[in-house]
Amino acid sequence: MKELTLTSMFHDTLRDIYYAERKILKTLPKMMRAAQSEDLRAAFQKHAQETEVQVERLQEVFALIGKRPQAKTCPAIDGIMDEGDEVMDTYKGTALIDAGLISSAQAVEHYEMARYGSLCLLAQTMGNADAVALLKETLQEEEATDAALEALASKLMVGMSAEAA
Amino acid sequence: MKELTLTSMFHDTLRDIYYAERKILKTLPKMMRAAQSEDLRAAFQKHAQETEVQVERLQEVFALIGKRPQAKTCPAIDGIMDEGDEVMDTYKGTALIDAGLISSAQAVEHYEMARYGSLCLLAQTMGNADAVALLKETLQEEEATDAALEALASKLMVGMSAEAA
Repeated sequence: MKELTLTSMFHDTLRDIYYAERKILKTLPKMMRAAQSEDLRAAFQKHAQETEVQVERLQEVFALIGKRPQAKTCPAIDGIMDEGDEVMDTYKGTALIDAGLISSAQAVEHYEMARYGSLCLLAQTMGNADAVALLKETLQEEEATDAALEALASKLMVGMSAEAA
Repeated sequence: MKELTLTSMFHDTLRDIYYAERKILKTLPKMMRAAQSEDLRAAFQKHAQETEVQVERLQEVFALIGKRPQAKTCPAIDGIMDEGDEVMDTYKGTALIDAGLISSAQAVEHYEMARYGSLCLLAQTMGNADAVALLKETLQEEEATDAALEALASKLMVGMSAEAA
């Protein structure tokens, strides 16, 4: 049985979010194609580029603790993505698809915010300032993405005709 | 095929979070028993009481749209909880259990924050001010719980001996 330490908990969480980020990277093009508004497509496009950098940052963090980048199946992101797929199937081509996509994407962002928050605190306790800096950068990007999606949703809802209700 | 409207999307999301809240209510006693620090047990206890009221609020919101309370399997919360179970199994009885429990609980809170945020916006667009008021109240409680958990985690980490790293 492996030894249980702060570093092993950190490593486990890192593998979890590494799986999640790579799954998100694979899913974003599908969400982009499903989106109706140009603004939302642009937001997903921007976030896909950010996510590529976030994956690289995670690889740097693995190196900082002397480990090779390795993913560990993350049932949470699998579940969140399954719900996202269901929304895409249900609302594809309807006036509600963008609202559904934003809602799904915000669930993803919130999951990441929780995990990166925990990782930052663990890295801080381990005294690994370089890891803290890299993880905090990504955390702030996820928070900004969530805020941008919320603003887009509000804008979308204002424009939504009363008939849809 | 049922008609796709803002109200049906709202209803679907409501059923999803209703399932999630009831699952959380069932899981909190287990998390309470696993927690080592008195502060964390108290935080879970408080949140269990809040969650009972949140379930009642959801029942009121169902009534506001003329539906009976009904849950719909939520793969996202199932996945988040599966990860929480794994953490409990792995770290039970070790110095890291509280850190693991807080991390799991924050993932749950963030999921709820995302869903209640979407529900608030949908209710607002539907012009259902009573539903908005109820949902916003819960959203603010989830945000406060997440902040309280984060403060507890920071306190815990400060107290954690250097040997654990």
